[in-house]
Amino acid sequence: MPADMLTLGEIIDRLGGDLQGDPRELVARVATLEKAGKGDVTFLSNPRYVTQLGATKASAVVIGREIPVPDGVAAIRTDNPYLYFARLSALLNPVERLDESLHSSAVIHPDAVLAEGVTAGAHVVVDADARIGRGSVLHHNTVVGRGVVIGANCVLHPGVVVYPHCVIADRVTLHAGAVVGADGFGIAWDADHWEKVPQVGRVLIGDDVEIGANTTIDRGAIEDTVIEKGVKLDNLIQIAHNVHIGEHTAIAACVGVAGSTRIGRRCRIGGASGISGHLTIADDVEVSAHTLITKSITNGGTYTGAYPFERNRDWRKNAATLRNLADLAQRVRQLEALLMKKDA
Amino acid sequence: MPADMLTLGEIIDRLGGDLQGDPRELVARVATLEKAGKGDVTFLSNPRYVTQLGATKASAVVIGREIPVPDGVAAIRTDNPYLYFARLSALLNPVERLDESLHSSAVIHPDAVLAEGVTAGAHVVVDADARIGRGSVLHHNTVVGRGVVIGANCVLHPGVVVYPHCVIADRVTLHAGAVVGADGFGIAWDADHWEKVPQVGRVLIGDDVEIGANTTIDRGAIEDTVIEKGVKLDNLIQIAHNVHIGEHTAIAACVGVAGSTRIGRRCRIGGASGISGHLTIADDVEVSAHTLITKSITNGGTYTGAYPFERNRDWRKNAATLRNLADLAQRVRQLEALLMKKDA
Amino acid sequence: MPADMLTLGEIIDRLGGDLQGDPRELVARVATLEKAGKGDVTFLSNPRYVTQLGATKASAVVIGREIPVPDGVAAIRTDNPYLYFARLSALLNPVERLDESLHSSAVIHPDAVLAEGVTAGAHVVVDADARIGRGSVLHHNTVVGRGVVIGANCVLHPGVVVYPHCVIADRVTLHAGAVVGADGFGIAWDADHWEKVPQVGRVLIGDDVEIGANTTIDRGAIEDTVIEKGVKLDNLIQIAHNVHIGEHTAIAACVGVAGSTRIGRRCRIGGASGISGHLTIADDVEVSAHTLITKSITNGGTYTGAYPFERNRDWRKNAATLRNLADLAQRVRQLEALLMKKDA
Repeated sequence: MPADMLTLGEIIDRLGGDLQGDPRELVARVATLEKAGKGDVTFLSNPRYVTQLGATKASAVVIGREIPVPDGVAAIRTDNPYLYFARLSALLNPVERLDESLHSSAVIHPDAVLAEGVTAGAHVVVDADARIGRGSVLHHNTVVGRGVVIGANCVLHPGVVVYPHCVIADRVTLHAGAVVGADGFGIAWDADHWEKVPQVGRVLIGDDVEIGANTTIDRGAIEDTVIEKGVKLDNLIQIAHNVHIGEHTAIAACVGVAGSTRIGRRCRIGGASGISGHLTIADDVEVSAHTLITKSITNGGTYTGAYPFERNRDWRKNAATLRNLADLAQRVRQLEALLMKKDA
Repeated sequence: MPADMLTLGEIIDRLGGDLQGDPRELVARVATLEKAGKGDVTFLSNPRYVTQLGATKASAVVIGREIPVPDGVAAIRTDNPYLYFARLSALLNPVERLDESLHSSAVIHPDAVLAEGVTAGAHVVVDADARIGRGSVLHHNTVVGRGVVIGANCVLHPGVVVYPHCVIADRVTLHAGAVVGADGFGIAWDADHWEKVPQVGRVLIGDDVEIGANTTIDRGAIEDTVIEKGVKLDNLIQIAHNVHIGEHTAIAACVGVAGSTRIGRRCRIGGASGISGHLTIADDVEVSAHTLITKSITNGGTYTGAYPFERNRDWRKNAATLRNLADLAQRVRQLEALLMKKDA
Repeated sequence: MPADMLTLGEIIDRLGGDLQGDPRELVARVATLEKAGKGDVTFLSNPRYVTQLGATKASAVVIGREIPVPDGVAAIRTDNPYLYFARLSALLNPVERLDESLHSSAVIHPDAVLAEGVTAGAHVVVDADARIGRGSVLHHNTVVGRGVVIGANCVLHPGVVVYPHCVIADRVTLHAGAVVGADGFGIAWDADHWEKVPQVGRVLIGDDVEIGANTTIDRGAIEDTVIEKGVKLDNLIQIAHNVHIGEHTAIAACVGVAGSTRIGRRCRIGGASGISGHLTIADDVEVSAHTLITKSITNGGTYTGAYPFERNRDWRKNAATLRNLADLAQRVRQLEALLMKKDA
């Protein structure tokens, strides 16, 4: 993996923070506390790893204001070591670019409009009336449908498909296999079979959104599905038609959000959780992993509904009792009544 | 999005229903009650939105027989407004077609047989001995394996992969990234490692099936995996080897169906639910979201097994108690015995 | 489906086992007990299907040592009929190969190194500095990123994407739509928005691994994500950054494994289960379907946490009671205290 080399002084000049150590020290790579060696820079963000700090062989560590570092390890002091480390890693690991600007095997429709500096890899397809903004990169085998609008400095990784007429803003990243704008699941029952409900809305994706591999975001049935700016979606997520996700919400992998649900801003949705359709979720809601949200949530906070795992033999007994839980509660009420009567 | 324009009279002529209003009124687009304006037609199907009806600015509304509509809004009266609306939306939003019939970059094996009117987009691959029926559309970058049979008027969206020897009937739609016929998960343990069990069955898909984006349907181990006619599958669904899904069953996103299970007709399977292997599910079964079905079901009806979500602090207490639920039930039995003895 | 034809004698010569019947009998196809006819070989592994044995019309059955077979059916006796059958099916169903070694539409970078006998289908892309080992097959529309290393005799099915610098050993199979090496979900909060944490690790995949359709395996944030030899992953699985999966572990479909978790050897993880981040799971752990593992597991055995499904009306009552379970337990404690006092 290519990496640039920087002195600690150059890093401080670019990213701020306070240096405790020799500004001429060179670092080339990021590394974990445990594996770091000479020329590596690491970080300590989670206090539970502080015991690993003493043994690190890193040249430098990005770390909070108060924690002492071992002799021979330079410290870059900052209030948010994880964020600082993210930026430092970006400096040391610049994004690789494709070789050619438009590969000869790319099929760009004559009525598509590509801004200057667009890169298209092998076997890319851009259909009629699509518009791609300055500096965007379409990796190999991506397909951009008719009338799609993609802003500046976006990255579509290999095999991404954007259906017709969807709109993607600036600095959006779509990982391999992501599908934007497939038909929502709209079907109407007619006596003895389903008929399809045309899905004529679009998907609108805001600035700085990142979408994981093989995630699917369906187009709206009538109006649009909306992913606001700064939203981060992990892999294998399903966003159904007419969902609206507020700014800076982050959703972990394997989540499903059903149709027409509106999720607030800065929510954090745990892996493999689900949100039923036609709900409204407030800002700043955290949903735990494997939790199904079946009602609207009006206040921020953490909501959970995962079954606690156990040894199978214990689960068998408890789960069997759970099937009679309402009965059990009724029997407790009877016992209480009986004792109350006796007391009286 | 292109749309045709129709008078209300033309709509009634084509789709039936009773018009209350001016048959010369023109409509061009479908819209929601809330957003509709002049030239838009909307619908009211769910009674809970009846309060929005008074404020709508739509030119016309598709609606049930009895509900009054505001002045200045034409009504198309029908017994099933949602179904009528689906058909009306299809009239106003005809499906867009690819420009060319066989793109020059498509790789069609000389031993493949394409009927008249087949459309193949850029970078499509059709392997030897495949047969594609009249009017079917293979969008960009789809791959049709050796010996695959695809019927008439099917649509394969970009990036679909159909493995060798699978059979797809007429009017089937496969959304982007769907994979039909990958190997089932068949492995046999040999002392210290797994050996692969060859998967030599096929996938058979009936008429009018629709399959969502990135959904996977595995080929059978020995016999075939079967999806009967009229089945509707949403996105990111896993159908394992030798599953059999009955006619007109609809399955929401993120569901997994394990191997050799047989699902009846007209079932409705909720999002992110699962059905274990080797089960038989009756016709007309509804499974709620996030529910795991672990035993065969012999009667129609609704089955549920989702953990109810709560504030995390409440969940912590209740979930901890759940781990001792069998004990709790035992203590209640002891209390009952004790009181019975006292009474005696 | 093409199939070779073998005598029972030839089969015994190649695979071992004891023949009870005529070694000159020819078989051409594998089949189920129920559907098998003349020329078919079937197997009986699960005792619950022994009742089907009497009616089978197979020419031969692969079966355990003790179970009697009907007249006219040859028996191949072995200690592990399922494993034997897997090998026999592989003999009768040799893998189909692509027609050409390097299709003219494949885009192979001049700085990529392909060993002899590599097959690349239509529209394949192999980027700079990638190395592909002897006998590996890249099916149509696969994308192999810059600097990727792929060993010998691997199979990448259509549409597979391998991101730059990942390393895949020998005899690895990747099914259609699988994505190896997309960025892990690393984001750092900065006051009012997320910043991306560069994902500079790789994915390392060992010998004989098989990965299902549309499964995603993210690259590491700093160090590598590791899938050890012999691991078998089903479809639509998410493996997050820096996960480490031990040898010969098998994971069923729709599972999510969160970041930095370490799973032991020979584990079996049921469908749609999940494992939280930063955990350690011992060797030989079995996780049941739909179970969320939230704590490290130090001993082998089976662990379960699925909500038992019921008729919806029963679930409603029990689930409502579950929301007050801690209260119920408290009331039982009060009853116990009250009775103890009375007894005293």
